[in-house]
Amino acid sequence: MKKIVLSGMRPTGALHLGHIAGALRNWIKLQDKYECYYSIVSWHALSSEYKNSKVIKNYIFELAVDWLSAGLDPEKSVIFLQSEVKEHAELHLLLSMIIPLPWLERVPTFKEMQKQLPDKELNTYGFLGYPVLQTADIIIYKANYVPVGEDQVYHIELAREIVRRFNRFFGKVFPEPEVLLTEVPRLAGTDGRKMSKSYNNAIYIGDPPSVIEEKIKPMVTDTRRKRRSDPGEPNDCPVFTLHKAFTPEEKINELAQACRKASIGCLDCKKVIIDELIEEFAPLREKRNELLKNPKIVWDILEEGNKKARKKAQQTMEEVRKAIGF
Amino acid sequence: MKKIVLSGMRPTGALHLGHIAGALRNWIKLQDKYECYYSIVSWHALSSEYKNSKVIKNYIFELAVDWLSAGLDPEKSVIFLQSEVKEHAELHLLLSMIIPLPWLERVPTFKEMQKQLPDKELNTYGFLGYPVLQTADIIIYKANYVPVGEDQVYHIELAREIVRRFNRFFGKVFPEPEVLLTEVPRLAGTDGRKMSKSYNNAIYIGDPPSVIEEKIKPMVTDTRRKRRSDPGEPNDCPVFTLHKAFTPEEKINELAQACRKASIGCLDCKKVIIDELIEEFAPLREKRNELLKNPKIVWDILEEGNKKARKKAQQTMEEVRKAIGF
Repeated sequence: MKKIVLSGMRPTGALHLGHIAGALRNWIKLQDKYECYYSIVSWHALSSEYKNSKVIKNYIFELAVDWLSAGLDPEKSVIFLQSEVKEHAELHLLLSMIIPLPWLERVPTFKEMQKQLPDKELNTYGFLGYPVLQTADIIIYKANYVPVGEDQVYHIELAREIVRRFNRFFGKVFPEPEVLLTEVPRLAGTDGRKMSKSYNNAIYIGDPPSVIEEKIKPMVTDTRRKRRSDPGEPNDCPVFTLHKAFTPEEKINELAQACRKASIGCLDCKKVIIDELIEEFAPLREKRNELLKNPKIVWDILEEGNKKARKKAQQTMEEVRKAIGF
Repeated sequence: MKKIVLSGMRPTGALHLGHIAGALRNWIKLQDKYECYYSIVSWHALSSEYKNSKVIKNYIFELAVDWLSAGLDPEKSVIFLQSEVKEHAELHLLLSMIIPLPWLERVPTFKEMQKQLPDKELNTYGFLGYPVLQTADIIIYKANYVPVGEDQVYHIELAREIVRRFNRFFGKVFPEPEVLLTEVPRLAGTDGRKMSKSYNNAIYIGDPPSVIEEKIKPMVTDTRRKRRSDPGEPNDCPVFTLHKAFTPEEKINELAQACRKASIGCLDCKKVIIDELIEEFAPLREKRNELLKNPKIVWDILEEGNKKARKKAQQTMEEVRKAIGF
């Protein structure tokens, strides 16, 4: 029997190159080897967007469109909406009863995010419980693996701790989920800082060729290349982070050598990644436009996924209730 | 249209005279005037009994039997099991997202109960969220009134605060529930302390006549009555707390005078309350024995109540999801 993989994303806006390189490519590969559950974690979005909750539904749709365009395949994976599988809420509540408060209070992201996003007022009961809901999301499918980046490892460790505590009190219902560590390349945005929606420096999956070109052309490069004839160091160049993620290896080496010898200029180098991105994302863009024109297809795919997820979640919850004695 | 009343009890063991005098009598009266929802709050029981959860199911059954025997009427009220109406868990989760942590941390019972019951390890995420689940329990039926004793007033005030916050963010979905203050007479147990299951000094609804007699006969009385001829003060007598709750008023006055004049002895006075309790609870005991012999009747009544509760809860949740924008 195939091992089970679960991962999710918060619907908080369109996907950019960082999401493709950091998560989606990996998720797409995993589809062939594992029984995969990919969840749009709508309730998690509410934990930070409760003052502006009306935007979430649109973000859900956009995220589903981006996932499907990028290659998540509803024939292979269960693609679904967390808030349509109510069993997550029940398991979240049951888990809440056995989780010592200090386990949550010590989670580093709890304090960090509050500092980073003071206007979101994240000092809430639900935000403190973020890892509880996340654990419910994972273990309700008895997931064996959770593909995540380094920044999420702590949360999965906590999920394992919660599973051990549950199994100790009520009997062995859940396997301990393991991290499937994804190397997340650090992509630079158009201003040289980390690519991020909130920095307004991202290149989106849906950007048409002209926009990709407009965004990359003025990007800062290695500051040593003041003139065309100055040699540069690719490892210090924001544009090069894009090459490393999207340009074929042999071409990358060529470009690096040429940069170090100043035998090409920055615009030449940018032209390569612009063409690469335009070409690589052409079929994705086409699929995307098709889905945007047929929203019903997208919602139907989600509904189909919700049904499959619900079936599995309901099976697990029957075991859980029995184990607890309800 | 009738106003809506909701109240609940945690299934933690058989009901005693304190529950009858403090809550059930009142609940029974309310049935004729209001649309009443009476909930066995099984998930709340888990918050303190998670190390011993297998006992809860039996407590649920006992509580249902005691309620029905005492006069809660499934033809008039919706009598149901919280954990069978999953919508409570969903609303609990949604509310959690908007509740500032300090609102919960400052609830007096949160620290108090931890001190009182150190072996229960109540410093959990779920126990901190007790008032959140309680609020969900109440407002999911759009309850107008919550009959509670003085000790629960703080929780209802908090529920009102949560409702105001929800309505402010998402639009007016919920009415603010109001307290229907119940005077809870302080009944003494057989050792003179407050009657309580945990003091092992309670007289239970199901106690047969011989047990009632055995429990009351050796009860301490006013310590001034060392000898039969010493006059006593009824207001300082534990037995008199039972009279005040269960003996007809005219008889009480007679007994009080006789005690102050030492014209009756303590055993005479106890005989009156023993007979009173045996007589008052005879029909209840009969009903109780009948239900204990036919557990299916009890579970069927609950299942019928669950269905009715679910219908109402589902209606509310549709409004809630729409208001949030899901």
